[in-house]
Amino acid sequence: VGSLKFKLTVAYDGASYHGWQSQKSGRGVQDQLESAMARLFGADLARSESASRTDTGVHAYGMAVHVEIPAERFQMPENRFALALNACLPADVRVRSARRMPAAFHARFDAIGKQYRYHVWNHPVMNPLLRQQAWHIPRPLNLGAMQAAAAQFVGRHDFRAFTSHRAGELGDSCRTLTRCSVKRSGSHFTFCLAGEGFLYKMCRGIVGTLVEIGRNERNDTKVAELLAQRDRRLTGMNAPAHGLVLWKVLYPTRR
Amino acid sequence: VGSLKFKLTVAYDGASYHGWQSQKSGRGVQDQLESAMARLFGADLARSESASRTDTGVHAYGMAVHVEIPAERFQMPENRFALALNACLPADVRVRSARRMPAAFHARFDAIGKQYRYHVWNHPVMNPLLRQQAWHIPRPLNLGAMQAAAAQFVGRHDFRAFTSHRAGELGDSCRTLTRCSVKRSGSHFTFCLAGEGFLYKMCRGIVGTLVEIGRNERNDTKVAELLAQRDRRLTGMNAPAHGLVLWKVLYPTRR
Repeated sequence: VGSLKFKLTVAYDGASYHGWQSQKSGRGVQDQLESAMARLFGADLARSESASRTDTGVHAYGMAVHVEIPAERFQMPENRFALALNACLPADVRVRSARRMPAAFHARFDAIGKQYRYHVWNHPVMNPLLRQQAWHIPRPLNLGAMQAAAAQFVGRHDFRAFTSHRAGELGDSCRTLTRCSVKRSGSHFTFCLAGEGFLYKMCRGIVGTLVEIGRNERNDTKVAELLAQRDRRLTGMNAPAHGLVLWKVLYPTRR
Repeated sequence: VGSLKFKLTVAYDGASYHGWQSQKSGRGVQDQLESAMARLFGADLARSESASRTDTGVHAYGMAVHVEIPAERFQMPENRFALALNACLPADVRVRSARRMPAAFHARFDAIGKQYRYHVWNHPVMNPLLRQQAWHIPRPLNLGAMQAAAAQFVGRHDFRAFTSHRAGELGDSCRTLTRCSVKRSGSHFTFCLAGEGFLYKMCRGIVGTLVEIGRNERNDTKVAELLAQRDRRLTGMNAPAHGLVLWKVLYPTRR
């Protein structure tokens, strides 16, 4: 009778995990999801494919994952699937929705873009309610300088200077950013990055560089020059993982 | 030479504490602050007076506290005091500012008002990033009904029906609310309450009743009738502690 394919939208607090990907230690978020699948359907069906990985400590609001279950083993109404998975998951991992997809759907190959958010708390004293979800920058940030620099990242560029790939591991390093912006609400700064695809640690490299610009540590920095030099040693530090959220994975609108 | 009085503005994540007040267990937030005072100035000066208490699990962004230190024991620039306290505090408690005040200042007696915020996550699935800071309401809330009801709490009323005081413990139960409002951003609802003073668990009783109205569990509820009946058994549940934040304590503008 064939099998049922679902797209899961997964949110998680990354603080306790060694990133998305399965780990021998069992501390990948994927291990939690696959344990839940194993409890519901048996160990042989505990497999999932995600749109992306996330690093240790990075959070997600809209990670996308696909899973496949033989129709005869799927013994519940489809609209109860997310509920059933959540009943088997720890409170820091939640399936926001489980949507039936055509058999050919693939969470990674069909994704056409991703959105990230990065949170900074800019005040001499850290906000304890955000301490696990925002980067603390004590000295004042120059919002206008960061906004002007952020805008220069938008478009198609070689982002080699903003990735932490080791030499030789990196193929084509051109990517297109459709959005790179910063907004402020009191002491809370939010960076929004969107694009077709991202290189390894590219978000964190860009945000780290923007924060150095915001601290006025890089007078007269031209983003275009940093991009053209293609040298990771000339750009900013990687912003720490705990401020980053994989916000959304984009797919073509279904006809 | 007299002594130096300071107003401390304190933020804390209440998840790990048995409320503000000192506990024999040492798990009051006040115990953390007073341990920090003891380390800086000696155990005999480890005393603080707060504007308010908070219940187990309740958070604060702007708790106000005063402390007093003999001038000859205060061996640092005044603008380093918050930094010094924070160096002795756990990461879930932070002194946002330490401001020198006249000797007569008293954090509780001089306060003229307080503001609270209450967070609700209204979606079938809880957001794991807010699980310790928002109340999860799975079924849809009627924003308009809650807003209309909230407005009726504003003004001077007998709030006996919205407090958890035991019989006989309650004196005058009239209070003035200057604000009671609800706003929505996606699945995130924020309640704002402000007033001169609040009875025990009054915020949580009001929010719990508003949420029942938002769930359409109280058709044609008239807030005025609930207030007039003065009967706790006829009003809603107490909203859980972990959604509540003591946002700000108000003092007269200094001349």
